Amino acid sequence: MTGWEEYSLVTAPRLFKIQHTDMPLSYYTGILGMPGMTAYAGFFEVCSPKQGEYVFVSAASGAVGQLVGQFAKLVGCYVVGSAGSKDKVDLLKNKFGFDEAFNYKEEPDLDAALKRYFPEGINIYFENVGGKMLDAVLLNMRIQGRITLCGMISQYNNDKPEGVHNLTCLISKRIRMEGFLVPDYFHLYPKFLEMMIPRIKEGKIVYVEDKAEGLESAPAALVGLFSGRNVGKQVVEVATE
Amino acid sequence: MTGWEEYSLVTAPRLFKIQHTDMPLSYYTGILGMPGMTAYAGFFEVCSPKQGEYVFVSAASGAVGQLVGQFAKLVGCYVVGSAGSKDKVDLLKNKFGFDEAFNYKEEPDLDAALKRYFPEGINIYFENVGGKMLDAVLLNMRIQGRITLCGMISQYNNDKPEGVHNLTCLISKRIRMEGFLVPDYFHLYPKFLEMMIPRIKEGKIVYVEDKAEGLESAPAALVGLFSGRNVGKQVVEVATE
Repeated sequence: MTGWEEYSLVTAPRLFKIQHTDMPLSYYTGILGMPGMTAYAGFFEVCSPKQGEYVFVSAASGAVGQLVGQFAKLVGCYVVGSAGSKDKVDLLKNKFGFDEAFNYKEEPDLDAALKRYFPEGINIYFENVGGKMLDAVLLNMRIQGRITLCGMISQYNNDKPEGVHNLTCLISKRIRMEGFLVPDYFHLYPKFLEMMIPRIKEGKIVYVEDKAEGLESAPAALVGLFSGRNVGKQVVEVATE
Repeated sequence: MTGWEEYSLVTAPRLFKIQHTDMPLSYYTGILGMPGMTAYAGFFEVCSPKQGEYVFVSAASGAVGQLVGQFAKLVGCYVVGSAGSKDKVDLLKNKFGFDEAFNYKEEPDLDAALKRYFPEGINIYFENVGGKMLDAVLLNMRIQGRITLCGMISQYNNDKPEGVHNLTCLISKRIRMEGFLVPDYFHLYPKFLEMMIPRIKEGKIVYVEDKAEGLESAPAALVGLFSGRNVGKQVVEVATE
């Protein structure tokens, strides 16, 4: 929220006191910060998940996606994630506890891939990518499913966003698709921390960061987000703690 | 719900007894039947309208649209409708009480048209057409607006539906877009009739039908729906009451 700089001058209202100083400071830029709150608000508040539901998360190894998958398991859902490399897929299955995961870059037919993992369809889709993935998901949603729109990273660098063709599925399957922005949910932050801190300490929620060192590595780290180079939350460490 | 025929043999569970025999029978195929319930459920149950909100209805002169506009006025909303001819636009303004209406076929730039009628944006969009209209509406929605997907008639005869490009607006403006089918709301039918019958009798809710006579006129009447030939609810009168 500040510039890319070693020191920032900000006014008091923009700051809050970190209570749990036994957590790594960088966690407050990720799992305990805005991405963590994004996963929490988008999954629990927007999706209203229920035990036994089938959940799909795209860009699942990112800071938000990795946490949504773990929340889904905490609720007792079946969760599948997509990501863009073998390393990321391994991470989803072996580290974050996703039931299944696949590399979307190796799936020429996303509709077929989703039918493989969700033969009876998807109850909840946590959308991080947009475009072709959303189109394929729409074909595979269940009746009265919910789609939470968190991001559409595949579209941000297009001059004109790709068209999404299968929106009539929203009618025939009575689906709710809803966008959200995390600042609307900041009032839940204390409740969120109360849930997160003990589970992180007990190892019930895990977290993976991709740390780049030094301010000079920041531009490449940013560009890497759009090609999917990072594995886990991309952090730039300006100075060690 | 039966065939195109003069007599139909159906089982009892598919029938219900019409209580208000002082209403024209054809109303039960329209304003007091499935289209009426569709307008009621889609507007009141899915949109949760509030007094003073700005409402846009596409295909507004159809059986559903004409009623959504009148419901919006009952709630105290500002309502604009689009339709495909001057006759229909006149009907919307002079008969159904829409605040404004326009002929979408005469608007080369739908985004500009919507900005003219909604300089501060749309709270509720009642979607009947899909495609380019939805794309233009997305650009003009207000924060925390609601889009109810009732139909997408512009798309049903396309081999491949048109792409909708502006879905990222759903995120930046935290919009809920929701499809629905009226059978999910049939339990509200008695409550719906209770609202409708007195208002129809008092002339507070009006209704326009486009009656074709004789079973032989049915195919042309059906095809006319897709070119927008009908003005008001298309009814085929197989035999007079």
